[in-house]
Amino acid sequence: MKKWNNQKYTLSEIAENVGAVLEGDGALEIFGVAPIDKAHRGEISFIANKNYLKYLETTEASALVLPPDIKFTRLPVLRHDNPYLTFARIIDLFHPDMRFIEPGIDASAIIENGVQIDPTSGIGPLCHISRGATVGSNNQFLSSIFIGENVSIGNNCLFYPGVKILADCRIGNDVILHPGVVIGSDGFGFAWSGTEHKKIKQIGWVEIEDEVEIGANTTVDRGALGPTRIGRGTKIDNLVQIAHNVEIGRCCIIVSQAGIAGSTKVGDGVIVAAQAGIIGHLEIGDKAIIGAQAGVAKSVPAGRAVLGSPARDIMEEKRIMTLQKRLPELLKRIKKLENSLGEE
Amino acid sequence: MKKWNNQKYTLSEIAENVGAVLEGDGALEIFGVAPIDKAHRGEISFIANKNYLKYLETTEASALVLPPDIKFTRLPVLRHDNPYLTFARIIDLFHPDMRFIEPGIDASAIIENGVQIDPTSGIGPLCHISRGATVGSNNQFLSSIFIGENVSIGNNCLFYPGVKILADCRIGNDVILHPGVVIGSDGFGFAWSGTEHKKIKQIGWVEIEDEVEIGANTTVDRGALGPTRIGRGTKIDNLVQIAHNVEIGRCCIIVSQAGIAGSTKVGDGVIVAAQAGIIGHLEIGDKAIIGAQAGVAKSVPAGRAVLGSPARDIMEEKRIMTLQKRLPELLKRIKKLENSLGEE
Amino acid sequence: MKKWNNQKYTLSEIAENVGAVLEGDGALEIFGVAPIDKAHRGEISFIANKNYLKYLETTEASALVLPPDIKFTRLPVLRHDNPYLTFARIIDLFHPDMRFIEPGIDASAIIENGVQIDPTSGIGPLCHISRGATVGSNNQFLSSIFIGENVSIGNNCLFYPGVKILADCRIGNDVILHPGVVIGSDGFGFAWSGTEHKKIKQIGWVEIEDEVEIGANTTVDRGALGPTRIGRGTKIDNLVQIAHNVEIGRCCIIVSQAGIAGSTKVGDGVIVAAQAGIIGHLEIGDKAIIGAQAGVAKSVPAGRAVLGSPARDIMEEKRIMTLQKRLPELLKRIKKLENSLGEE
Repeated sequence: MKKWNNQKYTLSEIAENVGAVLEGDGALEIFGVAPIDKAHRGEISFIANKNYLKYLETTEASALVLPPDIKFTRLPVLRHDNPYLTFARIIDLFHPDMRFIEPGIDASAIIENGVQIDPTSGIGPLCHISRGATVGSNNQFLSSIFIGENVSIGNNCLFYPGVKILADCRIGNDVILHPGVVIGSDGFGFAWSGTEHKKIKQIGWVEIEDEVEIGANTTVDRGALGPTRIGRGTKIDNLVQIAHNVEIGRCCIIVSQAGIAGSTKVGDGVIVAAQAGIIGHLEIGDKAIIGAQAGVAKSVPAGRAVLGSPARDIMEEKRIMTLQKRLPELLKRIKKLENSLGEE
Repeated sequence: MKKWNNQKYTLSEIAENVGAVLEGDGALEIFGVAPIDKAHRGEISFIANKNYLKYLETTEASALVLPPDIKFTRLPVLRHDNPYLTFARIIDLFHPDMRFIEPGIDASAIIENGVQIDPTSGIGPLCHISRGATVGSNNQFLSSIFIGENVSIGNNCLFYPGVKILADCRIGNDVILHPGVVIGSDGFGFAWSGTEHKKIKQIGWVEIEDEVEIGANTTVDRGALGPTRIGRGTKIDNLVQIAHNVEIGRCCIIVSQAGIAGSTKVGDGVIVAAQAGIIGHLEIGDKAIIGAQAGVAKSVPAGRAVLGSPARDIMEEKRIMTLQKRLPELLKRIKKLENSLGEE
Repeated sequence: MKKWNNQKYTLSEIAENVGAVLEGDGALEIFGVAPIDKAHRGEISFIANKNYLKYLETTEASALVLPPDIKFTRLPVLRHDNPYLTFARIIDLFHPDMRFIEPGIDASAIIENGVQIDPTSGIGPLCHISRGATVGSNNQFLSSIFIGENVSIGNNCLFYPGVKILADCRIGNDVILHPGVVIGSDGFGFAWSGTEHKKIKQIGWVEIEDEVEIGANTTVDRGALGPTRIGRGTKIDNLVQIAHNVEIGRCCIIVSQAGIAGSTKVGDGVIVAAQAGIIGHLEIGDKAIIGAQAGVAKSVPAGRAVLGSPARDIMEEKRIMTLQKRLPELLKRIKKLENSLGEE
């Protein structure tokens, strides 16, 4: 594990800080966090997934975060209904937010005329900010960030190296963009003229609302006309494709290598699992769940889970998957019936 | 919508300009373009997809582009057989091409010795052009473009920030490369020696013909020996993988997150839909259509459409998909037959 | 073909150099390498794949590398059990390693305080190396490389433009990273609080062992706690996603657009074909083979090959695929049985 951060807390302090119920010695000093199978003395760990229950008796951790229903007394315990969330808060305690970069503009950054940057923001080396852009307060642009013309950036954003935001896009507050993210590339729109694919000029933009996080090398295309929009609190993983004029609601989870085609509307709280694809012009209702590698070709009602390619209701798809596995058996049964009837 | 561009045209001017047939008041002034469900007074919109017919009576647009067969008289109409193409031309009218960057070389760009750049081209901040490269006329390199040794670039190209073109690759005219595109990375070739994967040195290159457009973060590997080639007028979306020695014909459409493995030859006018994969050493005939998420493991004849993984003829695959859905019913029918025959 | 490298060898010299058995005129001079269907006089080519046997009689090559079992006397031949490996070595002979960049630090590079760089390493234009980083000997950072705080880099590495390695990651020796690779982006970890997706701070890192090669725009996330690890000699293609705390063994092959989810352990010598996905917290045994587009939802024992989504044993999956194709026939047979029995 990474060496401790020169930080320590008693178990009582931790319990109070994260709102957990303490069982055992509150004076015990904790120096760091670790996964249950790799924790050492002085560290706290947790269980949120029953696959890890097997480590309960052997872990070298000095304390554990557990849900109320797991019986365990060998070590001091912090009890909480949501041990994963609680552990996330304990990590924050031991690893408080650091600024990656100080306020001010690095001498190697290229700032065009007519750019407004709040002096509390830090613009790192080799960034390029184009004319008409505005950058709010307390932002951190680590290195080699490209900001296009007339882009607006809110406050408290963190942009990792190689992020590129093209002209006219609008980024809210507390947005995290990981390395290589592209915001506002042209949508993929062409009209066949009879001899060539005539480009449909993409004159829209992208709007990223507050508290959105977007993973490394993910691409979000600008609208053809009007915006592509990512709603507040939505989290997107690496290498995801969001096409032009897609509208994604609040607090969605889009896992790596998923793709959402043009003009599709995704509701709030939707989960799109890894490598899933959703075709264009569909509506995905609130809290729908799109399974990994699903190929969604029809709109999905709110709350519904789908799986498979083409995607079907998850229960139906699982029944079909089971029967596919039984196809050799079904063939045998058909043959037996044919034999009984004297048919070939 | 994006605010109007301080441009206006009468409906007659637009009709003449794009070769459409005017129905209604040709003196009507139009100030911009918008999608039919979001258009306001003064804007023109269109219908090319019957899903949007429902907005015909409620749109606030002042005029519409429609195909000949849609009856509609409430507003002035421009009639054209290809309303999508016509609308693309109207967008161009209201949003003419702009230069992103002026001719000349930004002071922060690194230009090695022995580079030839036509003075009409603009080389933006933080670009790096390596020795032996040649750059033709009227190109725009926005920012942070890497050009490797002995690369040749034609005329009128537009390269967005973070494009990387590696040594010896050749780019034609009117090529658009979106942010983060990589041209000429090594192909993935190794020979197992018994103890290690020995690298097959990739000594080929990439040739991109005229009027090709390549989407954000897409990767095109150099040939192992000889070229990887993308034919004239082919359009490639975001996050696509083109492997070494692939040869793609003219006017193809390759949609996002598709992948084409090594040495496969793709004809002219082929469509490869999103997230499809084609294995290596195959031939995909002219105008073939590869469905979304298809897994193509055999060559596809010209004009054929395939779907599924493994990909099959689309009609066969659709029949199979329907029967998969009926598997629970088939099982019941087999059971019933068994019962009738007194079998288990 | 790329023009010859001003290098020539006699066939005897080549045979001796690569350990092949010479058949024919050892004094024959060879000037370069080429694929069998494109070779010209003076070039040597090879056959390792039976698809290319058809070119045996028509190739214009002056000599061939062949396995022992192919009868052929028209041209001089170098015989070797592993013609592909042998040809790889011949390529090296004609195209010896070149340095892309001289030792020393380009004037445009940004080197923060407290960085250690061995003077034999070359740091190209527009690189940014953050405080606390160490860079060993004979490395080549071509251009626009970002190295985060406290990163350590071994010796003899080659990093192409736009590589980004984030804080605390550790890179071994002889590692090749292609353009746009991201190492150490945050893992995708959130805990639902009831109102928001609370970020699990990702405080781990990435360890890349010796002789690893990673393809363009591939992303490798840092561990949530502890490392994500890529084992010695493993080769990863373009646009691959490696999630947090994944551990990959030695000498694996991970083909383009594959994705491996969090905490999954992959053994040694595993092959993951293109566009395959493996969910989190699984174990993939040594020398397992994951087929293209497979969706692996269960652990895979050592040596096993799986295919399909959900992935099954390859023999079982192929039997099922065959029977899926026969579903229309099975339906007919059921109908016929029903007719025989007078059922509906």
